[in-house]
Amino acid sequence: MQPLVGIIMGSRSDWATMSAAAEMLEQLGVPHEVKVVSAHRTPDRLFDYAAGAEARGLQVIIAGAGGAAHLPGMVAAKTVLPVLGVPVQSQALNGMDSLLSIVQMPKGIPVGTLAIGKAGAANAGLLAASMLGNQYPEVRKALHAFRRAQTDAVLDADDPRLPA
Amino acid sequence: MQPLVGIIMGSRSDWATMSAAAEMLEQLGVPHEVKVVSAHRTPDRLFDYAAGAEARGLQVIIAGAGGAAHLPGMVAAKTVLPVLGVPVQSQALNGMDSLLSIVQMPKGIPVGTLAIGKAGAANAGLLAASMLGNQYPEVRKALHAFRRAQTDAVLDADDPRLPA
Amino acid sequence: MQPLVGIIMGSRSDWATMSAAAEMLEQLGVPHEVKVVSAHRTPDRLFDYAAGAEARGLQVIIAGAGGAAHLPGMVAAKTVLPVLGVPVQSQALNGMDSLLSIVQMPKGIPVGTLAIGKAGAANAGLLAASMLGNQYPEVRKALHAFRRAQTDAVLDADDPRLPA
Amino acid sequence: MQPLVGIIMGSRSDWATMSAAAEMLEQLGVPHEVKVVSAHRTPDRLFDYAAGAEARGLQVIIAGAGGAAHLPGMVAAKTVLPVLGVPVQSQALNGMDSLLSIVQMPKGIPVGTLAIGKAGAANAGLLAASMLGNQYPEVRKALHAFRRAQTDAVLDADDPRLPA
Amino acid sequence: MQPLVGIIMGSRSDWATMSAAAEMLEQLGVPHEVKVVSAHRTPDRLFDYAAGAEARGLQVIIAGAGGAAHLPGMVAAKTVLPVLGVPVQSQALNGMDSLLSIVQMPKGIPVGTLAIGKAGAANAGLLAASMLGNQYPEVRKALHAFRRAQTDAVLDADDPRLPA
Amino acid sequence: MQPLVGIIMGSRSDWATMSAAAEMLEQLGVPHEVKVVSAHRTPDRLFDYAAGAEARGLQVIIAGAGGAAHLPGMVAAKTVLPVLGVPVQSQALNGMDSLLSIVQMPKGIPVGTLAIGKAGAANAGLLAASMLGNQYPEVRKALHAFRRAQTDAVLDADDPRLPA
Amino acid sequence: MQPLVGIIMGSRSDWATMSAAAEMLEQLGVPHEVKVVSAHRTPDRLFDYAAGAEARGLQVIIAGAGGAAHLPGMVAAKTVLPVLGVPVQSQALNGMDSLLSIVQMPKGIPVGTLAIGKAGAANAGLLAASMLGNQYPEVRKALHAFRRAQTDAVLDADDPRLPA
Amino acid sequence: MQPLVGIIMGSRSDWATMSAAAEMLEQLGVPHEVKVVSAHRTPDRLFDYAAGAEARGLQVIIAGAGGAAHLPGMVAAKTVLPVLGVPVQSQALNGMDSLLSIVQMPKGIPVGTLAIGKAGAANAGLLAASMLGNQYPEVRKALHAFRRAQTDAVLDADDPRLPA
Repeated sequence: MQPLVGIIMGSRSDWATMSAAAEMLEQLGVPHEVKVVSAHRTPDRLFDYAAGAEARGLQVIIAGAGGAAHLPGMVAAKTVLPVLGVPVQSQALNGMDSLLSIVQMPKGIPVGTLAIGKAGAANAGLLAASMLGNQYPEVRKALHAFRRAQTDAVLDADDPRLPA
Repeated sequence: MQPLVGIIMGSRSDWATMSAAAEMLEQLGVPHEVKVVSAHRTPDRLFDYAAGAEARGLQVIIAGAGGAAHLPGMVAAKTVLPVLGVPVQSQALNGMDSLLSIVQMPKGIPVGTLAIGKAGAANAGLLAASMLGNQYPEVRKALHAFRRAQTDAVLDADDPRLPA
Repeated sequence: MQPLVGIIMGSRSDWATMSAAAEMLEQLGVPHEVKVVSAHRTPDRLFDYAAGAEARGLQVIIAGAGGAAHLPGMVAAKTVLPVLGVPVQSQALNGMDSLLSIVQMPKGIPVGTLAIGKAGAANAGLLAASMLGNQYPEVRKALHAFRRAQTDAVLDADDPRLPA
Repeated sequence: MQPLVGIIMGSRSDWATMSAAAEMLEQLGVPHEVKVVSAHRTPDRLFDYAAGAEARGLQVIIAGAGGAAHLPGMVAAKTVLPVLGVPVQSQALNGMDSLLSIVQMPKGIPVGTLAIGKAGAANAGLLAASMLGNQYPEVRKALHAFRRAQTDAVLDADDPRLPA
Repeated sequence: MQPLVGIIMGSRSDWATMSAAAEMLEQLGVPHEVKVVSAHRTPDRLFDYAAGAEARGLQVIIAGAGGAAHLPGMVAAKTVLPVLGVPVQSQALNGMDSLLSIVQMPKGIPVGTLAIGKAGAANAGLLAASMLGNQYPEVRKALHAFRRAQTDAVLDADDPRLPA
Repeated sequence: MQPLVGIIMGSRSDWATMSAAAEMLEQLGVPHEVKVVSAHRTPDRLFDYAAGAEARGLQVIIAGAGGAAHLPGMVAAKTVLPVLGVPVQSQALNGMDSLLSIVQMPKGIPVGTLAIGKAGAANAGLLAASMLGNQYPEVRKALHAFRRAQTDAVLDADDPRLPA
Repeated sequence: MQPLVGIIMGSRSDWATMSAAAEMLEQLGVPHEVKVVSAHRTPDRLFDYAAGAEARGLQVIIAGAGGAAHLPGMVAAKTVLPVLGVPVQSQALNGMDSLLSIVQMPKGIPVGTLAIGKAGAANAGLLAASMLGNQYPEVRKALHAFRRAQTDAVLDADDPRLPA
Repeated sequence: MQPLVGIIMGSRSDWATMSAAAEMLEQLGVPHEVKVVSAHRTPDRLFDYAAGAEARGLQVIIAGAGGAAHLPGMVAAKTVLPVLGVPVQSQALNGMDSLLSIVQMPKGIPVGTLAIGKAGAANAGLLAASMLGNQYPEVRKALHAFRRAQTDAVLDADDPRLPA
């Protein structure tokens, strides 16, 4: 099936974080693809990937990176598709460097940035789905179901002193 | 014309920042609405606004707030529409508090966060348009034109020692 | 017994932190209740809980949350009861995000914020009791006894080189 | 009239910030007193003030200080009354030092901390009133009126593009 | 022997850090005493200790504390003896809160602050000795010997690839 | 004269900072060129510039940028010439975002980073010259003269109470 | 008169901050000298100054510097006299860089660090005097007088609403 | 073989980080030497090393240090050779102190700073080689080969879900 969302990450080790985005899209039934594309080690591939994404039918790109995280911003520089950025938790600075490198984009090239780490990656999947929900009623429906289930899980187990 | 994007902000003083989002949507021809909705001072309106947005035909919500900025996250809690958050520069902490309050959302409720201040607000407009570009060819076209003009402006005036 | 203090938290995992508030109230003989109420996953329950608290006879609400911690501030937006916020230590940013999201409330809606983590949760219990101490002499008395015991424990074992 | 709230601050220059607490209490009809008490320059007065507050009939103490802000915590060490702390915005570090010095109290001695600066001072007044509202119906009533007016002000002027 | 340096700390658990100060003074032959004095849990003892130190013949006080670390500053408020502060590494914020709470003292009451943790505690011992060295030739001599040995240890083992 | 150093910056407004690099090279007699090359608004020009720099005879590239500053790192990704990065002081976060975005590069693609702002830009010129000094004796000589003059200026006017 | 305290600073512009140290020593009657000594621009003078200080009869050295502030630590590396460091407020990072560069010294070479800016400089003067007070009764006496006057000034004008 | 690059570090324990610089130079065939030189514990050796480096034929110096990291800046103060600084990850502050102490050098004395930790050390080796590449064609060639291999490794294993 034609992937609608491209998930890319700066290195294989980012998969521990970014897999949460793929799992969320899987759960919501959104076709997607996954690839390692390094801004610094494979800049040409990054440009090819970003420049060709629109023509290939992608509608959203999710990019995760850590440290001086240039991947999301450089992808955004080469496409008018919406780009979501996930700051991967870095070793020394706990992802604060990743976050600022992704979110503080200059006027003209936006990156929609999510939280540091796995929660952010899962939420990138959700946000991509919420965008697609405007066009694809079944994705919208899946989102509503996801939300209801999430709410019910809290309502059903709201005494923290009891086992869940 | 039916607005596709709702721009809301926590207080009237945020308009100095958030007007950049409206101007960007204006420039790209995206119909939108603008309102003050305070998470803390008008929580019921916030809930009504967010809960009714999908039925009213909105497709993206842009929410700007400063300090303990709860507006974007609480809107996101009440809708499955994509929500973009703009951290307004705060007085004491320069918007670092706004940024962390918006971006560090827990798994399950995403907010796509932009840069602190006016650049972030303008980019929220651009990112909203890029989402709509998947459905509305004229928005996509407007985005391509915006990007070309932006690139040409740099290329045409690339010696910083000469007057622009 | 009619609970005077409501302890709520954004997720079951916050209990590891927030149990310290319950234990402190227990120790001081202050009746209280405990519940999971998520600002983002159960926003309606949050509103119901906060809006109904005064009528139900609660006199203080203690709310703990981590990351983009909106629970204390949103509870405060829906009640005129005093609300105390406990920043739960978050994974990437060690609770600095939780702290700023809770403490930096705008003028008009206060949250009395305690320290990050278990010490803050225990102190939220103490502060709630100190408020109630103005009305309930036996709580005031329990507080004086707690303090004396705490002071004596230091005085009795003030050579750190000896086993306590 | 017997003051119920004591507002103290580390230096005269803090009045520019702390006056917002006094104004809020004034507006809500809560009797209060105001004094300069420096933890570092008048430690004995600080001890006398804190130790005598309960007997003098005070029910809440609001303490504002900047930099290495020890005033709120040391007052709390000498009384079981509830103590609220207001971090005054400092010159070099914008009040981050004040905030951490006030909020990060160890287990056993709580300080309910508000936002940095004037908003925090005003909110300290509100939070003190909300505590007293449990005992004094007219204060509770004043708080409800304050909230309603605050909400109405936003609802009545919710188009940020029009003059307020 | 009459102690010249008093080492105090806010809690028994700080001994893991502050023992380095005692060991350093031991090594340099400076008589000293060690005590737990908590600013928040034993404020009266703190005042008695600080106010009586000069008369008891102490010449320097070293105070270690973590979090909202008020001990060094409050000791300094009650004595004109030189006070050195050691920020103990705190759990959530790694001692940044301790550091700012100790170092950012207002004009008029100084605390000479050392590095966060054990290195800072050892250096507090060294700095106390360096002050005493102006009066006590044998302390000055011990310091010179300490420095020479320290330098020689590096010079003798300057190839990091060989076992030391 | 064949430029040996290329100075590029993300926007015309960065010239206020980056001119200090050009002035330093001017002063040291190092031929250089100056251009606006935006990573985000002119990504293709960035790639062409970086990929062609070695063949054009450049020996060092100095790149200045602010916020999510991707220019230095992306240039480094496309050339094996040494790349120096200058963090331009940003509005909200004072250049801390610029600094982390430039310095925290992953293993494999280095950027030698200088201080935030004009001092950093001037030092980028000096560091470029110091690299070239290994090959060009007259540059080495100019550096020695610069240092001597700098030292003499301090030695000649070392009483800060007198006019310089 | 033989100076007992040496005040040095990294550049003439630091005098705006460091003059507060000289004024305090003046006020307390402690003989002192003042000089510009730059760690980076006059390293040899720095070494000569520090290495010769003990023999010249100095008893304390106060060193102020900003940014990557190496002056206090390098002075301390070359003398066993007590060294006090004053972080000068820097442009981009408000002195946080100066503070960490001065205070985070490794085990073995201590610098007693004061607050950022003029308050810190004044306090360096006070702390130097407090050290000398152990030897010089008239300095001790001057300190007691200074403290009393300081306390009285607060006690005499403790209503912040009245003109001082 | 005459070493072209000198790698120095403040303590033996820094070798765990700095070995990555040596390994990189080894891999690229650049002759180098390795030594422990402590700014604080062996200041005279530091000065001798730096002052003699040019005459000994060194062309680049790489200096790694942690905490109040003065080694790179003080080396730079004593030589006109290019100096690269590596912030070693510190215990309490994760290397943020090391980074700021190294990078925030004043105008006139540059240090090219790399990322915190091992990645930064490896990149210091790469950057030193890239400087030498302008003079030594075989180093330039080795760099090109290193880059190609690095790029190919990513291209060959770009599906993060498969074992590498």
